[in-house]
Amino acid sequence: MPSIDVCYSPELLHLYELEGKAVVAVDVLRATSTMVTAFAHGATDIIPVMQLEECRAYAQQGCLTAAERNGIKAEGFDLGNSPFAYMHAGIKGKTIAITTTNGTRAIRLSEAAKEIVVGSFLNLQAVADHLEELQLDVIVVCAGWKGKFNLEDTLYAGALAERLQAKFAFENDATLASLYLYHAAKEDMVTFLRQSSHVQRLENLEIHKDIEFCLQHDVYDVLPVWKQNRLVDLRVEEFKS
Amino acid sequence: MPSIDVCYSPELLHLYELEGKAVVAVDVLRATSTMVTAFAHGATDIIPVMQLEECRAYAQQGCLTAAERNGIKAEGFDLGNSPFAYMHAGIKGKTIAITTTNGTRAIRLSEAAKEIVVGSFLNLQAVADHLEELQLDVIVVCAGWKGKFNLEDTLYAGALAERLQAKFAFENDATLASLYLYHAAKEDMVTFLRQSSHVQRLENLEIHKDIEFCLQHDVYDVLPVWKQNRLVDLRVEEFKS
Repeated sequence: MPSIDVCYSPELLHLYELEGKAVVAVDVLRATSTMVTAFAHGATDIIPVMQLEECRAYAQQGCLTAAERNGIKAEGFDLGNSPFAYMHAGIKGKTIAITTTNGTRAIRLSEAAKEIVVGSFLNLQAVADHLEELQLDVIVVCAGWKGKFNLEDTLYAGALAERLQAKFAFENDATLASLYLYHAAKEDMVTFLRQSSHVQRLENLEIHKDIEFCLQHDVYDVLPVWKQNRLVDLRVEEFKS
Repeated sequence: MPSIDVCYSPELLHLYELEGKAVVAVDVLRATSTMVTAFAHGATDIIPVMQLEECRAYAQQGCLTAAERNGIKAEGFDLGNSPFAYMHAGIKGKTIAITTTNGTRAIRLSEAAKEIVVGSFLNLQAVADHLEELQLDVIVVCAGWKGKFNLEDTLYAGALAERLQAKFAFENDATLASLYLYHAAKEDMVTFLRQSSHVQRLENLEIHKDIEFCLQHDVYDVLPVWKQNRLVDLRVEEFKS
C-alpha cells in the first residue's frame, strides 16, 4: 500500500525524500486554485517562475503574464492571482507565465519528485483519482505563508487524505493532524478560515468572493502536472495522444 | 495584549523573531516532561547539551548524566529519558547533564529569546501563570520528530493556548490549529495519540507507562527556565532570594 505524507512548508522539504514519489503542490489561496481555473478555461500550459523580472520577460514570447505579491496583482502584468480573472475566452490556447508568493516556490522546490501534480479543492477528486492510478508514495507540499504553516493548505491536505485513506497508509503525524482539522472545518470552511491570519489578510483586500470560490470541492476535472519545465493539463494531453 | 504563536519544528525557527520574547520549549515525549519531573524531585539544575560526548564529560564534574537516542537510554550514562527513572532520592541536590534527540535542540536553538521556559503537560499551569506575569509575546517551540511536525507537542501548544486565550492574541494559524487539535484530543489523549507515528515507535519500546504519565496535566508546580547556560527551577530560585 502506498503512503501519503504532508509537508507543512517548503522550508521543511529538505527533510523529505522526494525521489520516486508523487508531490501534490498546493496553495489554495490562491495560486494553485487559479492555475486549475486557467486550465479549465483552456490555457495550454503554465510556466511557474520565482522572480517578477523572469515572469515579465515571457511577454516577449507571446505568453500572458501573471504576478501577485502579498496578495495584490503586481504592476505591468496581464493577470493577478484571482481565479475570476482567468474565466474568459482570452485564456484559451494561451501559455501563462505566473509568479506568486508561495505557490510557485512549492512547485519549483519539488522538482526531485517523479511527478508533481497541482492540487486545489477545485480539482480534488481528479487529483485523488490520478494518485490512486499512479500507486506512488505521495507527499502533499503545502505552500504555507512565507514559510510558515497555514490552515487552508492543511485543510486541503486533510481533504485529500480523506479521499485516499482507504488505499494509502498514513505516513506521519502531519497527515493525521490535517485530517482532524479538515473534519473540524469541512461543514463550513469559510467561517472556519475566517479566524486564519492569511484569510484575514485577504479579506482586507476585499477578495472574499475568491475565497468562497477556491473552497468549493470538485468543480473542475483538470489535472495540472509538471512536464519539461511547465505545467500542462494531463487530461488534455491524454486526449491528444 | 501580548501574543502567542507556535513554531512546529526547530527547522522553522529561523522564520521567527525571538528577541524580546518568551519561548516555551516543549518535547512532551519525553525530554521536557522528564526535566520537569527531575526538578520536582529536587534536581538543582539541568544542563541540556547536543552531543553524547559533551554530555558524558560532565560526569567528571560530579553531575549525573542522561542520554537518549531514538527513544532508548544510551550506553554508559546514569539515566535515560523515562521520567520514572528520576523519581528517587538520588536526584535531590544534583546537577543533571542531559542530551536527547529533539528536546535539547529546541532549547539550544532558542537562545536568542529573552526567556526560555520548559513546558510539559505536567507543569502546564505553572508555565501559563508565569507567562501571564511576564507579559511578553510567546512562541511555543515544538521539538517535533527529527525536524518534522509531531502531534504530542502540538497538543501541548493547544493546551497552553487554551489556558492563555483570554489574555493573549493568537498570532497565526499554527496556534489555531493546535487549539483545534487539542479540543479533538483532550478527552482521551492516550487513545488519540496511539495513531501517532512517534507514539507507535515508543509503544514498540514498551514505554506505554511513560506516555500515560507525560500526558497528565498539572502534576508539578515546577518552572524550569534557562539561566546562564543551564536550566533552573524558578520556583526554587524565587524561594531562595
